[in-house]
Amino acid sequence: VTSFFDKLNQSVDANNSLLSVGLDPVADRLPSHLQGRPQAFFEFNTGIIDATKDIVCAYKPNSAFYEAHGPSGIEQLKATIDYIHEVAPHVPIILDAKRGDIGNTNEGYLAFCYDYLNVDAVTLHPYMGGDSLQPFLARQDKGAIIMCRNSNPGAGEFQDLDVNGAPLYEHVARQISDSWNTNNNCVLVVGATAPSEMKRIREIVGEDMIFLVPGIGAQGGDIEASVKAGLGANNRGIIMHSGRDIMYASSGEDFAEQARTRAVQTRDDINTYR
Amino acid sequence: VTSFFDKLNQSVDANNSLLSVGLDPVADRLPSHLQGRPQAFFEFNTGIIDATKDIVCAYKPNSAFYEAHGPSGIEQLKATIDYIHEVAPHVPIILDAKRGDIGNTNEGYLAFCYDYLNVDAVTLHPYMGGDSLQPFLARQDKGAIIMCRNSNPGAGEFQDLDVNGAPLYEHVARQISDSWNTNNNCVLVVGATAPSEMKRIREIVGEDMIFLVPGIGAQGGDIEASVKAGLGANNRGIIMHSGRDIMYASSGEDFAEQARTRAVQTRDDINTYR
Repeated sequence: VTSFFDKLNQSVDANNSLLSVGLDPVADRLPSHLQGRPQAFFEFNTGIIDATKDIVCAYKPNSAFYEAHGPSGIEQLKATIDYIHEVAPHVPIILDAKRGDIGNTNEGYLAFCYDYLNVDAVTLHPYMGGDSLQPFLARQDKGAIIMCRNSNPGAGEFQDLDVNGAPLYEHVARQISDSWNTNNNCVLVVGATAPSEMKRIREIVGEDMIFLVPGIGAQGGDIEASVKAGLGANNRGIIMHSGRDIMYASSGEDFAEQARTRAVQTRDDINTYR
Repeated sequence: VTSFFDKLNQSVDANNSLLSVGLDPVADRLPSHLQGRPQAFFEFNTGIIDATKDIVCAYKPNSAFYEAHGPSGIEQLKATIDYIHEVAPHVPIILDAKRGDIGNTNEGYLAFCYDYLNVDAVTLHPYMGGDSLQPFLARQDKGAIIMCRNSNPGAGEFQDLDVNGAPLYEHVARQISDSWNTNNNCVLVVGATAPSEMKRIREIVGEDMIFLVPGIGAQGGDIEASVKAGLGANNRGIIMHSGRDIMYASSGEDFAEQARTRAVQTRDDINTYR
């Protein structure tokens, strides 16, 4: 069984990259020559993928942008994922779906993510506890990417609450590291807007756990601070994610070319601090 | 604007019911005469709906069971919701989707739930904080049903953690009641397997907030204890949800008839304690 970690580390090395790129199309932000076309999302995505597949360590489409358009959106998400498997089989695909239900219901989400879409990992909410996520945790071949400390401005409302002298997110990190990660397939979401929290989480979970780090680019997270705080074993261990900043680098017919330029800059910027 | 609360209270009174019924089809649990048919989920659901639409206060399809089958599943979910609007326009529809992402991404989930599917309320994860859920909280016409204390056996792993002398779920309940509920559209998920926690949450949030109470039936929650602990103003204020116990009351051609019998029993059982 190839694990998510193996696949990720291979793409990190092959593309010398810790950069994940988003595939999150929004109808009115697409280049004007694509707007209104029936497969506009798929065409946009293939442009970004062709232009960046030797630059990224992962792609992370967010399910919400496709679900917004019902079955047609879901079909374009599936077509996008099939396309990545075809042209960039070494690049793992993370479905950002932020799912989490009780055990037997999660089987339905597993079927959506792994049987139908065939992605390599999915993002999950921890609030219902580890028993609820067991169907995801049991999949040795897939990554279970669990929210720990998010990047949105109000993420601390509950995540920073003091629990016996430490913030809640530290308990979440420790519990995942100590109890949920028996198949060595857990990844933590730690926002780039919170480098000091990231440093503390790295101390807690050790150098082998991988962090998915959203929030660089449009959300304003600091690349240098995040890389220095989060880097794990072998100068790897972090997936630095950029969405809008790269996807929408240009709204013209050169959108893919400009996305590539921006992706190379971001990848190299990250590598400066490794 | 008709609010979720108005619509719910009307169905509670019209059907003299606090019972919500699930529409969560699983291929190999369907009655054998429906198995393998292309619209099997929709046909199953219409059978349950026809048989129970004068008995329930709400329907709660869980998105996972449809997503598991890709676009065809989503289309049958949409057809099911359209059917409820047609034959039971007074009964509100809760999409159990347990969503929750950052603000601009939640707009995609809003489009899925409200523009495409046209449900009346959706279930949400609180972990990322109130600012992340703002697009849902801003919808005065729709219910934002937020997980507080769940019914799965391991729900307490984080939800029961002690935060300044009170469990986390109490902080979540208080924060939603005090800060998130400015549009009077928040509902709390409180499992029937935790009646003492439910009693405490009712004390915190007062008698006007509605609870969605999963866990009766197959999950073993106690109806009497839950109703007594959770009941709010005007002997309403709780949505007692039963899924498998009613949907799969029979696996024969009489599945709808048996579901009705079981639904009537459950509704009446709940009403005994109002």
